Amino acid sequence: MIVIGIDIGGTEIKAGLVSLGAGETPQNADSGERVLHRLAVPTNATGGPSAVIEAVHRVVGELLRLSSDCGNAARIGIGVPGSVDHESGVVLCPPNLPGWERVPLARIVEAKWGMPVSIDNDANCAALAEARFGAGRGHRSFIALTLGTGVGSGIVLDGALYRGERGFGGEFGHMTIDYNGPQCNCGNTGCVEAYIGGAYIPGRARSYLAHHPESTLYGRALEEPGSLTPKILADAAASGDEGARAFLRETGELLGIAVASAVNLLDIHVFVIGGGIAGAGEPLFAGIASSARSHVLSVHRESIRILPARLGNEAGMLGAAALAAS
Amino acid sequence: MIVIGIDIGGTEIKAGLVSLGAGETPQNADSGERVLHRLAVPTNATGGPSAVIEAVHRVVGELLRLSSDCGNAARIGIGVPGSVDHESGVVLCPPNLPGWERVPLARIVEAKWGMPVSIDNDANCAALAEARFGAGRGHRSFIALTLGTGVGSGIVLDGALYRGERGFGGEFGHMTIDYNGPQCNCGNTGCVEAYIGGAYIPGRARSYLAHHPESTLYGRALEEPGSLTPKILADAAASGDEGARAFLRETGELLGIAVASAVNLLDIHVFVIGGGIAGAGEPLFAGIASSARSHVLSVHRESIRILPARLGNEAGMLGAAALAAS
Repeated sequence: MIVIGIDIGGTEIKAGLVSLGAGETPQNADSGERVLHRLAVPTNATGGPSAVIEAVHRVVGELLRLSSDCGNAARIGIGVPGSVDHESGVVLCPPNLPGWERVPLARIVEAKWGMPVSIDNDANCAALAEARFGAGRGHRSFIALTLGTGVGSGIVLDGALYRGERGFGGEFGHMTIDYNGPQCNCGNTGCVEAYIGGAYIPGRARSYLAHHPESTLYGRALEEPGSLTPKILADAAASGDEGARAFLRETGELLGIAVASAVNLLDIHVFVIGGGIAGAGEPLFAGIASSARSHVLSVHRESIRILPARLGNEAGMLGAAALAAS
Repeated sequence: MIVIGIDIGGTEIKAGLVSLGAGETPQNADSGERVLHRLAVPTNATGGPSAVIEAVHRVVGELLRLSSDCGNAARIGIGVPGSVDHESGVVLCPPNLPGWERVPLARIVEAKWGMPVSIDNDANCAALAEARFGAGRGHRSFIALTLGTGVGSGIVLDGALYRGERGFGGEFGHMTIDYNGPQCNCGNTGCVEAYIGGAYIPGRARSYLAHHPESTLYGRALEEPGSLTPKILADAAASGDEGARAFLRETGELLGIAVASAVNLLDIHVFVIGGGIAGAGEPLFAGIASSARSHVLSVHRESIRILPARLGNEAGMLGAAALAAS
């Protein structure tokens, strides 16, 4: 089956014409080979819903033109950066798309192109993509975490996306790890996101590295604390800076506490970690794994697997395509 | 259908001959009317598996004799106080049943009585009973919490028990609410159980009430701190003791933090609360609800329902019966 996958981001729309064979198995599925064409256009988010929808129509039109070379596309899947009523295809107030409030996106795109349209939030799409084509293959249940400005997550239970009662499930970032902890943007205190979310990393890094004069980032910590972004920290760690490595390990350990709560609650053992700071690699992943293992009930200790996400910034588009085909 | 439900507790085995009509609806199901006969015998846990199994056989034999008056029983369900491999019917090391390790209980009882036997852990049975006959009726998804020595839980998702990958799901009591918090028996720190589990209540109550000389429990807090059991505290609260009420409210607030984490992760809104300290009623429930509402994402705030369990100490037996029939 040929489908169109579209990932609407805050700044860019990524789209692809994707071939999903009916007879594919986890062994022969390979995400790279199945993308027949790729497109990326600006989201034009500041133009409000009509500008974004216009951009979506443009990429659909272009991909349909291309699809006539390879068998026509029959379905469209769309991932959006916010809450979605998956059943009705209505997008609900995505925080990075100004002016959107209950936009019936699936119906609008269906009406224009006369083919079935499925939509879901981007974290669910990323989880679905990792389940079908990436690090989640072969695992019946896992949680895919995307570490960015927020901590997004998609939950796969027994082979299917778990969306929750109203499609608002998977707010892993707002699990509490210390109710006496720092204030989170959501209003709660001590959410794991208030420690490891992109907006909170520079402040925590400053507090940490200002006590480590041996770090190459010590000067920045004192003088330009806002510049201690996940990327700067990951680069320093990759260059062997022990202070940056220790900070990233601690960041992983904080995430591991929430991972352990989810393991104990759900008896689920595989976590697929992607997004910006996941690029830090070893120190972060070692911190997550050791912390999760030390905080779970002993029965789970040997079963925990902390895996890097494999699909990078194509996960949303590939997951939207998989959504269309499912 | 007539089935036998058996709840194996650490000290007592409760069993019942239960009528479960095929055509029943949530409106006409009533747990009281459907129990045709009840039995309770000592578990004889110190006698090891053979003594307990002998006691199970005895109650099955007695209920089958009684069942010939009302149409023969065709199935048996058993709840056990510990982990169970639900598929194979093997009981795995229940902490309160000494000498049990991988006992194939379902097969043993099946072989003796020649009828299908289903087993599950007692928290799952209690959740199933509340779902079918109790406070969970009409709710597609909820978590049933049993507050006792530990904090047991059973998770119902979309109308079915969620057991997790290996049947170890539902360890709600070991979700972390403060990773810098007190040591829990499980080895972790700051589990919600380390605050509100039965073993931790007297210590916390002492710390609290020793600063409240106006409380009728002030003297006990100073001189007999171990006597501040959940029951003593609930009785004092019911008599209007403000110190005891405030302590129980705080206990509820601590539980509400973990409730909020589960709400944010799973987009689930109904919590059915039973077990010893749940008898404290209003101050505890008010604490849970207000804390959960203040800690969840705003989208969930109005949807949260904290409900008292309705089936008391028959929940395990009724759930075992429902398990047999399902």
